[in-house]
Amino acid sequence: MKTFRLNVIPGDGIGVDVIREGRRVLDRIAEVSGGISFQYHELPWSCEYYLKHGKMMPADGMAILRDCDAILLGAVGFPGVPDHISLRQLLLPIRVEFDQYVNMRPVKMLPGLNSPLKNETMDFVCIRENSEGEYCGKGEWKNHGQADEMVMQHSIFTRKGTERILRYAFEYAKKNGKNHLLSATKSNALNYSMVFWDQIYDEVRQDYPDMTSAKMHVDALAGYFIMHPDRLQVVVASNLFGDILTDLGSAMLGSIGISPSGNINPARKYPSMFEPIHGSAPDIAGKGIANPMGTFWAISMMLEHLDCKEEADQIMTAMQHVLREGKAVTQDIGGKASTTEMTDAILAVL
Amino acid sequence: MKTFRLNVIPGDGIGVDVIREGRRVLDRIAEVSGGISFQYHELPWSCEYYLKHGKMMPADGMAILRDCDAILLGAVGFPGVPDHISLRQLLLPIRVEFDQYVNMRPVKMLPGLNSPLKNETMDFVCIRENSEGEYCGKGEWKNHGQADEMVMQHSIFTRKGTERILRYAFEYAKKNGKNHLLSATKSNALNYSMVFWDQIYDEVRQDYPDMTSAKMHVDALAGYFIMHPDRLQVVVASNLFGDILTDLGSAMLGSIGISPSGNINPARKYPSMFEPIHGSAPDIAGKGIANPMGTFWAISMMLEHLDCKEEADQIMTAMQHVLREGKAVTQDIGGKASTTEMTDAILAVL
Ligand SMILES: CC(C)[C@H](C(=O)O)[C@@H](O)C(=O)O
Ligand SMILES: CC(C)[C@H](C(=O)O)[C@@H](O)C(=O)O
Repeated sequence: MKTFRLNVIPGDGIGVDVIREGRRVLDRIAEVSGGISFQYHELPWSCEYYLKHGKMMPADGMAILRDCDAILLGAVGFPGVPDHISLRQLLLPIRVEFDQYVNMRPVKMLPGLNSPLKNETMDFVCIRENSEGEYCGKGEWKNHGQADEMVMQHSIFTRKGTERILRYAFEYAKKNGKNHLLSATKSNALNYSMVFWDQIYDEVRQDYPDMTSAKMHVDALAGYFIMHPDRLQVVVASNLFGDILTDLGSAMLGSIGISPSGNINPARKYPSMFEPIHGSAPDIAGKGIANPMGTFWAISMMLEHLDCKEEADQIMTAMQHVLREGKAVTQDIGGKASTTEMTDAILAVL
Repeated sequence: MKTFRLNVIPGDGIGVDVIREGRRVLDRIAEVSGGISFQYHELPWSCEYYLKHGKMMPADGMAILRDCDAILLGAVGFPGVPDHISLRQLLLPIRVEFDQYVNMRPVKMLPGLNSPLKNETMDFVCIRENSEGEYCGKGEWKNHGQADEMVMQHSIFTRKGTERILRYAFEYAKKNGKNHLLSATKSNALNYSMVFWDQIYDEVRQDYPDMTSAKMHVDALAGYFIMHPDRLQVVVASNLFGDILTDLGSAMLGSIGISPSGNINPARKYPSMFEPIHGSAPDIAGKGIANPMGTFWAISMMLEHLDCKEEADQIMTAMQHVLREGKAVTQDIGGKASTTEMTDAILAVL
């Protein structure tokens, strides 16, 4: 019997709703598998916590968090706490602290989904840099409130950080039998960061002579996403570009509530973190209508990361079954089911 | 008789092909209108020029360029000259030098176009900041070629620059009977630039109490573009975000070859510049198959800017006629016509 220790952060808004259901799915997986079990350590870190304690997590938060096999997160952010505080004190530092420099986001059409695109053929992966770049948080704010007020936001790209994500993407493509890779750039305007990114890309691709790869400016690439979704296989992008492209990719599946996000520390020195791609959606929080699919998909990714490939596949199969039937699905994808009813349907299949 | 003096920069690749046809349309407009005429001053500034002279334009280029009523540009960039040189020495400095701080990009479904989206209802305008922000071109490059090599790219947002574009967008919405405005942000991650942007947005919107407006993170907004294109009216965004969102918007019309871009100096102290949104497309340059619609639409915007509203409308009407008939359209939008044949069809209607 293998027991996995999970740190669970439901966070804010619908994060709480979907994580509750995620735990039910995990419990059922443990039940049916026989060979594995989960031990949860639930952490109340959230905007509510912030309003009480003046910070998003305790001072020893990272140490607590580190001690586990994986982290499962719902969503962070709620009105009353500025986003740049809630996110910059919880989600973003975890990604950096645990060197989760790969953010893996699959865009795969599942049965029963209704894409806003006419061409519904898509099955690709976005690999987003997750530890530096535009998200480094450095900058300056001058002459507050004056006529000549100005701010600077810095992006920092290191050779180490850029090379490892590009290499990871090429390796991923190779291992998964994909022979086409696109690197998002904007070197025609961003004359330092993206010229550098392209240069490292040109270096790394030398090591993959069998891979067809190309760079594409992020503006053109966003257009390419919706014009030719079926041609995409592996897309690699900086932190900000990856953020934008993956939300676009998620919307291409017909709902932002479906897609998962794996924040991976490839060296496995630190825990990786899995979350649905959607936010805390304060407007529908607690109403019991949030789509839990993004969380289930994230859990499937987590199980795969924990080398439980069979259980990971079981979840995907159950999800596909429920989606195909189309009876027990939530509003955002055209149904009437509640978050709990959709989960019930998944459990019934499992 | 009013004569407009136009500085024309065909530039590179298909820029040359489409500007040639653009001039034919302008000539016909002059012919049929009776009241106006155009005097062209064609400038050979391009990558070819660069390879001969080591720069994209002569030292007194800006002075030459300034002396006109408007600038018409094809496209810039060609293999052999790095993009960050060609663009940073021609297109981008013109935008800044002539204080063309508004980049206006309509996304409007025309008859006969085939959107990749199921929902083909769209008629909105993106107003992009065009003079600063992520495009300021400042940064640092350290430890070249070493293991600890790193680059910084700075974004600079001034109060003046941010306030004027937001105000322009609100004013534009008000004047054009639109009551909904979305401001693209990413303040949950970009803790200086976008927090500042949001703050100015919150200030400016106070002056427009009748306007429904909201900010939306650019990642979510990209998804919103394809999920709810019919709900968009006016979108205002920073230089980089506007760049990405407008290419996405252009692709939503079914071809990147259709959309125009107006680089506007609202004070009319300097000339404004009009261009198709597409690039120089080296792969199809000189083949005579480029879609000239983006240029015609840009010319229509230019005429409107020059207070020739009637002539501007004539061009749009002729374009819609040819698109609706669908006979004389280029490959990218499902036809077989050459660039010249498509123009011939437009001229026949005019
Ligand atoms: C909440 C926000 C800071 C975050 C990001 O931009 O990374 C989110 O959009 C995501 O993609 O996980
Ligand atoms: C060519 C490039 C520098 C330019 C930009 O990014 O502004 C283009 O994409 C545009 O949108 O006009």
